Amino acid sequence: MSTAFQAFGSTGRRRFDLSVYLVTDTRLSGPRGVAAVAAAAVRGGVTLVQLRDPDATTRSLIEAARQLQAVLAPLGIPLIVNDRVDVALAVGADGVHLGDRDMPAETARRLLGPELIIGVTVHDAAEARAVDAAIADYAGIGPVFATSTKAEARPAIGVDGFRTLREQVPLPVVGIGGIDAALAAAVVAAGADGVAVVSAICAAADPEAAARAIRGAVTNGRGTA
Amino acid sequence: MSTAFQAFGSTGRRRFDLSVYLVTDTRLSGPRGVAAVAAAAVRGGVTLVQLRDPDATTRSLIEAARQLQAVLAPLGIPLIVNDRVDVALAVGADGVHLGDRDMPAETARRLLGPELIIGVTVHDAAEARAVDAAIADYAGIGPVFATSTKAEARPAIGVDGFRTLREQVPLPVVGIGGIDAALAAAVVAAGADGVAVVSAICAAADPEAAARAIRGAVTNGRGTA
Repeated sequence: MSTAFQAFGSTGRRRFDLSVYLVTDTRLSGPRGVAAVAAAAVRGGVTLVQLRDPDATTRSLIEAARQLQAVLAPLGIPLIVNDRVDVALAVGADGVHLGDRDMPAETARRLLGPELIIGVTVHDAAEARAVDAAIADYAGIGPVFATSTKAEARPAIGVDGFRTLREQVPLPVVGIGGIDAALAAAVVAAGADGVAVVSAICAAADPEAAARAIRGAVTNGRGTA
Repeated sequence: MSTAFQAFGSTGRRRFDLSVYLVTDTRLSGPRGVAAVAAAAVRGGVTLVQLRDPDATTRSLIEAARQLQAVLAPLGIPLIVNDRVDVALAVGADGVHLGDRDMPAETARRLLGPELIIGVTVHDAAEARAVDAAIADYAGIGPVFATSTKAEARPAIGVDGFRTLREQVPLPVVGIGGIDAALAAAVVAAGADGVAVVSAICAAADPEAAARAIRGAVTNGRGTA
């Protein structure tokens, strides 16, 4: 079993476990609502939740973050906010995830202080080299497989591309992009500390069962890493 | 002349003058760029600039804010950021303007501290009553006239509607919505401390001349208030 079974953050940071990293999707969650889908997913083994809704107003993002916190905080599951440092600060979330169109990580670290978790996205070797492990706590590498949940997604890098980038990033990493229970083990075997999942959980009829299957696949992938 | 000739903020807040309040529009500014339009407008008499671009990414908003600061800070003209407390904090702007879909003002005050300027939008009597003068520093009331620069704008309230709401808001106020040099004096005569302008400056062939005409109209309006 990999020593990365639980990938905790640096000293002073809040602890986190990347094993099954749920990225919320408001549309795919449908009338169930994001908080209910996340609650079910956590019962199935999700270890961290990122609130992502690039179309939402600031006020509705704050409301969605508070609803997620009510579900997650009692269970000790960290809440990460995509892009929006203001929303993370407003609700007291555990961190932010920053892509290349978001606030630079060094600016976010200054605003968030030393304890909050900062994740960054890596698409290619240049971005892998640019990761500052003194500032960021983890990286999402992808898209590993083709995905339809993100507008303007880049070409899939595949498992081999993931492995190459993973070796260049001196942080815990999740693979992201089109990962489901059938594909998760291969990503973990290629060096991921966990997998980030959107549609395989948010679009599932049974998000708890979907999360449980992915959690099992992550464990299996560690056995073969 | 009205005592509101210069409407400064509360003790402890950064000072501001609402006389001619430019709200930037990236599309209307065109290839000249927002910073160049703002620079010209300030030469013409703009007293405060709000960066507004609801379609921009966080990173490009930060870049736009920095470009505006480079123009405005040497001249002592405050920079206000629409909606985004994160962007305001990242660049050290002078404040934020918050609409009803943005962060609640009390949350923003907690994140921004006592010195930064917070403006709020008032569309109707209920919103006028909800203004907390201990938290907000000024209000934008409107739309006074019909406007095409804001998606999903509400019906125009007219000068009489403006006057009614203005009397209910215990803060300095600007009128906003379709105001140009021909209409500015009437809004000021109805109790505005200044006028907020988008297209009358951003779409003008000569933003400096446009701002100068509006500044003159504001002065004239005070003479008849």
